Amino acid sequence: MNNESTNQNAFGMIGLGTMGANLLQNIADHGYNCAGYDTNYNKVDSLNQLDYNNIHGYSTIQDFANSLKSPKTVMMLVPAGKIVDVVINELLEVLDKGDIIIDGGNSHFTDTERRYKDLESKGYHFIGMGVSGGEEGARKGPSMMPGGDKNAYEKISPILEKIATQVNGEPTVAYMGARSAGHFVKMVHNGIEYAIMQLISETFEIMKKGLQMDDKEIEAVYAKWNEGRLKSYLIEITRDIFSYIKPGDKHLLLNNIKDEAKALGTGKWTSQAAMDLGLPVPVIDVSVGMRDLSRYKDLRIEASKIFPDSPNNEFRGKADKYISTLESAYYFGMVSAYAQGMHLLYHANQEYKYNLNLDTIAKIWRGGCIIRSEFLEDIYAAYNKKPELKHLFLDISIHDDLISSTPNIRAVVADASRSGIAVPAFSAALSYFDNFRLETMPTNLVMAQRDYFGSHTYELNNKEGVFHTQWEKLVDAENSTKKPLS
Amino acid sequence: MNNESTNQNAFGMIGLGTMGANLLQNIADHGYNCAGYDTNYNKVDSLNQLDYNNIHGYSTIQDFANSLKSPKTVMMLVPAGKIVDVVINELLEVLDKGDIIIDGGNSHFTDTERRYKDLESKGYHFIGMGVSGGEEGARKGPSMMPGGDKNAYEKISPILEKIATQVNGEPTVAYMGARSAGHFVKMVHNGIEYAIMQLISETFEIMKKGLQMDDKEIEAVYAKWNEGRLKSYLIEITRDIFSYIKPGDKHLLLNNIKDEAKALGTGKWTSQAAMDLGLPVPVIDVSVGMRDLSRYKDLRIEASKIFPDSPNNEFRGKADKYISTLESAYYFGMVSAYAQGMHLLYHANQEYKYNLNLDTIAKIWRGGCIIRSEFLEDIYAAYNKKPELKHLFLDISIHDDLISSTPNIRAVVADASRSGIAVPAFSAALSYFDNFRLETMPTNLVMAQRDYFGSHTYELNNKEGVFHTQWEKLVDAENSTKKPLS
Repeated sequence: MNNESTNQNAFGMIGLGTMGANLLQNIADHGYNCAGYDTNYNKVDSLNQLDYNNIHGYSTIQDFANSLKSPKTVMMLVPAGKIVDVVINELLEVLDKGDIIIDGGNSHFTDTERRYKDLESKGYHFIGMGVSGGEEGARKGPSMMPGGDKNAYEKISPILEKIATQVNGEPTVAYMGARSAGHFVKMVHNGIEYAIMQLISETFEIMKKGLQMDDKEIEAVYAKWNEGRLKSYLIEITRDIFSYIKPGDKHLLLNNIKDEAKALGTGKWTSQAAMDLGLPVPVIDVSVGMRDLSRYKDLRIEASKIFPDSPNNEFRGKADKYISTLESAYYFGMVSAYAQGMHLLYHANQEYKYNLNLDTIAKIWRGGCIIRSEFLEDIYAAYNKKPELKHLFLDISIHDDLISSTPNIRAVVADASRSGIAVPAFSAALSYFDNFRLETMPTNLVMAQRDYFGSHTYELNNKEGVFHTQWEKLVDAENSTKKPLS
Repeated sequence: MNNESTNQNAFGMIGLGTMGANLLQNIADHGYNCAGYDTNYNKVDSLNQLDYNNIHGYSTIQDFANSLKSPKTVMMLVPAGKIVDVVINELLEVLDKGDIIIDGGNSHFTDTERRYKDLESKGYHFIGMGVSGGEEGARKGPSMMPGGDKNAYEKISPILEKIATQVNGEPTVAYMGARSAGHFVKMVHNGIEYAIMQLISETFEIMKKGLQMDDKEIEAVYAKWNEGRLKSYLIEITRDIFSYIKPGDKHLLLNNIKDEAKALGTGKWTSQAAMDLGLPVPVIDVSVGMRDLSRYKDLRIEASKIFPDSPNNEFRGKADKYISTLESAYYFGMVSAYAQGMHLLYHANQEYKYNLNLDTIAKIWRGGCIIRSEFLEDIYAAYNKKPELKHLFLDISIHDDLISSTPNIRAVVADASRSGIAVPAFSAALSYFDNFRLETMPTNLVMAQRDYFGSHTYELNNKEGVFHTQWEKLVDAENSTKKPLS
């Protein structure tokens, strides 16, 4: 490869980890000349060893920048946080006004918001872009969620649309919206991902401890589910995990993996951002909480010695006929996970004026990304039919499916609760639903309590205004009955 | 009142809202001369109208400061946020190095951390102090959680110990710990408060919709509960609320109060701070989420029209014998709410090096504050017996009570889930417990999935190190069976 020539490369990548290198090969496969740069020379060298004429690795950022066609397009795939700011500052030394900088990492959307405004004021085009699909996705076709400078996006969209996966003839990339919209959407994608993974782990727990199925039987269930309406990447890889035995071993590798969950933080960010917006996403919240609890292993071991097992009377001996109940309960939980995520996007869109299109988001999530699933076709259809749909539960087709699943999620939560099997995400999905469909929640009591102890005031159903009551006075005044005459 | 004299007042208050004015009267009742200042002159005037010789209102901050004995002690009770910084800056103009500034509002602990360090570097003593008890508490004896400068605290402790409530001869105030410890403890207090209020609202829902009890019957239950192990301020005021009918009305005021919850944010802060620490508090999280959901009233009304009510088969006709089940389930939930809060304090103490004493915290919460309860005696006893106790569930006496409550919370969650009655906090308490007592959670599957799609690696139970597997390769290689020979 000739790295001497200048102005030849259509696309530059900073950060040549697996994701960056794979994405470059994906771009090169589509005929583009492209450039890579990393501070780690070994990675540059590895890139130049690849059997590609149109991938060029550079060991200085100046050579890297010189090699790019103007307006230069540079994507960063570096760890989120301060490193992104450091790289941007280095880039400003070698780029020109009008050039395009893409942050393809998992940056917090508030950082992207700040960087967008800063770079815009300096005359650079900034795109915060969520990329999902893992290593394989980067290589073969990720789902990409770019937000920020729309004109700049249109300049680079021909490349991005080619390297994306195609679903029904449409690429899994599209402009999401203004400023930090891309990273916000990707964050919510990951929040949904946490919730779905937690829900799947609860089906595993019920099959293993409740229905007392063996690994092979469980694998068969996931394999079957992956052929129906639960078909999805996460169910598919779960099926694979339940078939993975290392050569020479007798049991699943899974059974030997430690149960202490790591996390990069995007699930937590989703919950925290939702709380800041006052938007409930309890299935995501509890998935974050259970990953956290999993890390208190010493405490759990201590507790396991003093708290006895519960009798497992609800599931025992029911395996065959229970699987369809469980499928339906999982379906209900999964719908809730997506619905809470979409509701968060709906609300964030109003608050942050992103100009999101929820149908476009559902469309590009149908392929390439970790939460791709058959059900995303239904989500896409729902928002495509009614772009202003306030909540997925209100879509008539999803509504009907939810109603028919309701008896099953009720059964699973009730049976698991009685049997001592933890189903935090299933029960959060159910209690969310049971409050969601209430015209009147018991929160009037919370408001009365707040007014009682803190004079925080309350509102009334039949009268405008804000009111305060001296609750204890009337009680004291009528001490004998504690109730005034009516 | 003579406001001309200088250097006479032992204590100054900035912010003469109900809390500030009440606290000043409390201090004056104990014989101290004190000073008040507010930018709103009407409030200063009202203060001077009070029938107290030893309370002096000032309309300029300079006169206010001149009236104080040195070292001057000034407490702020102003809305959290930027106003606190504004007032501090004004105070620095009129105070001297060595003077004591107390922030008695609900400041976010990270703000207190910043202010503490800033004021320390400038030579002032800063105390961030949580105050709980509402208006009545401020007047008659609040619970106070001061943190920050320990020497300064010792100078003002004689006053604070007198104005606090006394429980078993001990005041409900004590030094909490370093820097922002006071506001952190108060934040967690409020997080627990959110959880308990949510749990109570769920008992209300079960009694009303499930057991179909009328208001009078429900009042009798809360009255009875308040005479047993559930005795607490929040149950007591709930009982009062269920007896409050406005003169001329036929029904409870409660029934006409809107179910859209307001919140000042301390519950949200607790959940967000716990997530930042990686410490699970799911009962608090879901209480925050349900307040949020309550505000989506239009959405809920729309949903209530298209989602049918559930059959209420589990509770109907069981009222009498079910109340003791519900009492026990509430007890379980309440223990979980306190335990999650205390666990958060335990963990924050390690991370932030606050030097907290959990028994001292339980001790001062026994009176004056909103979450005061009979059960806090048990919490105090547990930490007093074993200061390094890692989690309340591990205290043998609490452990025994939890075990005997377990069948009841299982029954309530199961019955409510089947009956369509939302019990998000009850079910979060139960699923937390059911995971907490597991040596092995199903989180090994989450780790396998993360490694599958993102090469995030995993750890093994029987081998040190960090591992990655090419999961799909082995599956592909043995395509016919998807399982290698073992």
